[in-house]
Amino acid sequence: MLVAGKHLRTIGLGDDGWSVEIIDQTKLPFAFETVRLRTLEDAVRAIAAMQVRGAPLIGATAAYGVCLALRADASGDALDRACETLMATRPTAVNLGWALDEMAAAVRNLPQGARADAAYARAAAIADEDVAICRAIGGNGLSLIRAVAAEKGDDGPVNILTHCNAGWLATVDYGTALAPIYMAHDAGIPVHVWVDETRPRNQGARLTAWELAGHGVPHTVIVDSAGGHLMQRGKVDLCITGTDRTTGAGDVCNKIGTYLKALAAKDNGVPFYVALPGPTIDWTMSDGADIPIEERDPAEVSGIAGRAEDGSVARVDLMPDGSAAANYGFDITPARLITALITERGVCEASAEGLLSLYPERRGLIPKVLDNDP
Amino acid sequence: MLVAGKHLRTIGLGDDGWSVEIIDQTKLPFAFETVRLRTLEDAVRAIAAMQVRGAPLIGATAAYGVCLALRADASGDALDRACETLMATRPTAVNLGWALDEMAAAVRNLPQGARADAAYARAAAIADEDVAICRAIGGNGLSLIRAVAAEKGDDGPVNILTHCNAGWLATVDYGTALAPIYMAHDAGIPVHVWVDETRPRNQGARLTAWELAGHGVPHTVIVDSAGGHLMQRGKVDLCITGTDRTTGAGDVCNKIGTYLKALAAKDNGVPFYVALPGPTIDWTMSDGADIPIEERDPAEVSGIAGRAEDGSVARVDLMPDGSAAANYGFDITPARLITALITERGVCEASAEGLLSLYPERRGLIPKVLDNDP
Repeated sequence: MLVAGKHLRTIGLGDDGWSVEIIDQTKLPFAFETVRLRTLEDAVRAIAAMQVRGAPLIGATAAYGVCLALRADASGDALDRACETLMATRPTAVNLGWALDEMAAAVRNLPQGARADAAYARAAAIADEDVAICRAIGGNGLSLIRAVAAEKGDDGPVNILTHCNAGWLATVDYGTALAPIYMAHDAGIPVHVWVDETRPRNQGARLTAWELAGHGVPHTVIVDSAGGHLMQRGKVDLCITGTDRTTGAGDVCNKIGTYLKALAAKDNGVPFYVALPGPTIDWTMSDGADIPIEERDPAEVSGIAGRAEDGSVARVDLMPDGSAAANYGFDITPARLITALITERGVCEASAEGLLSLYPERRGLIPKVLDNDP
Repeated sequence: MLVAGKHLRTIGLGDDGWSVEIIDQTKLPFAFETVRLRTLEDAVRAIAAMQVRGAPLIGATAAYGVCLALRADASGDALDRACETLMATRPTAVNLGWALDEMAAAVRNLPQGARADAAYARAAAIADEDVAICRAIGGNGLSLIRAVAAEKGDDGPVNILTHCNAGWLATVDYGTALAPIYMAHDAGIPVHVWVDETRPRNQGARLTAWELAGHGVPHTVIVDSAGGHLMQRGKVDLCITGTDRTTGAGDVCNKIGTYLKALAAKDNGVPFYVALPGPTIDWTMSDGADIPIEERDPAEVSGIAGRAEDGSVARVDLMPDGSAAANYGFDITPARLITALITERGVCEASAEGLLSLYPERRGLIPKVLDNDP
């Protein structure tokens, strides 16, 4: 996507041909800074500190993290250690594990001297695949937006609500949930995006708003509590979110609060779509209730960083001393609340049958769905 | 309630016997400051700037605002002007109108020389009535908590989720939603409160947490998006919120986001209670969808105030330049999502019949319920 007129991806190689350049997303929207990763530890830190975030970008960063590790030490032990350390950074995103498996498979049977080059090749391919996947998701979602626009006619723009950031910053390029929105805007379809601020880390207010503004897409930031009211009063035509992990039965694990918006959408007859790349599907799992939910530092809840009056970025505390906070990162949106899944292979029902219609090669992999969904 | 060991109400007369002392709630929890209101304009500003907030306390402040106006000018014109100006401060809280009607009725037929004294007497009575109402709500809600505690036995504390602040700071004393919680705690029933931070003004993180900490009630602050996840994983035994306006049919207008928690409670079989004083019932209205929703300054969404590193209270901006924000203050929780209403007269179903069983003198007042609820 464009940043100040220059086409950028969120991750790529530096001029030296081996170090890895990322955008430090913790600094956005107040400063645009890139960071150079030169070691495994740099990559681990970038993921853990959320300089990079978003399931697809975490996967790509982990892939390049393996490259950096193998460049320093191409032994099998080093490979195992790199995969283990990277896997431990974020427990939720399933394509972190997918990318690491891909990397290990690509290099494990090669002589040590050939491993680093092969790793760089596979990491670049993973990044390119992500871009291709996101473009395909965009095209498939565009049809849904176009249909709503046709139905509305001259009755104002298509109002789309999204939660967190599933834009190009969450991927290598284009984004997942935002890809159809960018394509609709570029196709001249009038769209307006309600952007959930997405406490505690405010990826919506910080990143999605910044992305949309950069691309010229009309948007309005709201608090996370506002979506239900907007849907009650007919101000939302459809919702699109991303997902960090999707079970083989179509349950979606995404940023905390997604579930509440899906409930409100169901209650008000508003279509609720989830956009996802194939690699975020966890075919080993059916019931979202089995997904472990990451608990993060309570300091993300008890305070927040923003731009102070003097222009510097400052953290302020939001709570009285002596009150505790808890910080659950994700929640589960059951498949029954999801109108459809938008994948790179097409749009399908959020169910095992729906997913298998697009990914038939996975048939037989999904564990039997137990009927214990509330 | 106790503040640093001293029993306080949120509003009362100053030592001079006529000026009105309030707690400046915009300064909490980082500073405890009282403010003296000496004119109608002071009272209007206190309500509009949310130095006082919460439906019952807004009503009491408006009542005293009429006293201050009549003290300066006891003419009928002055009375009308005072009521109009105060009524325009906040559109949602129905007991603002109720209190103003009470005040006007108490003084209108008196000679001008007797009006100020009568106004002070009626305002004091309104404040005392609010205290009595809140104590009664507390007692009625206590029975519900006691029943859950008995069912849980030794299986941990009763986990109660609340949204915004419906504690003593929202009333003259005791609170509405928090009154049963204080009484349960005082009765030795183990309780733990999940406190929604309640963006954009964070009344949960700032006020509810401060109140609960002051009273020694265990509590944990969470982002507004977290409640659904907690209910999915069995970590909430019941929800209690307040309400700014309740229709005669039991629809509840409360702080933005209440609706989303009620949806999650319904979806997970968690009881959802709303605590309310009789004067917050709008008997002229059935369908919550008819309630106008206050839109406040977008700056409350685009930034937030907190305590900076140097101890000062500072505002930080949270959004990129050039992105717009919208700030809807309330939403409607339909009666069908509410397990029961807790009033000063008892606990009832959220319906016209339920409310009329407790307020039979209102029969015939409620407009026919149209079947247009989504």
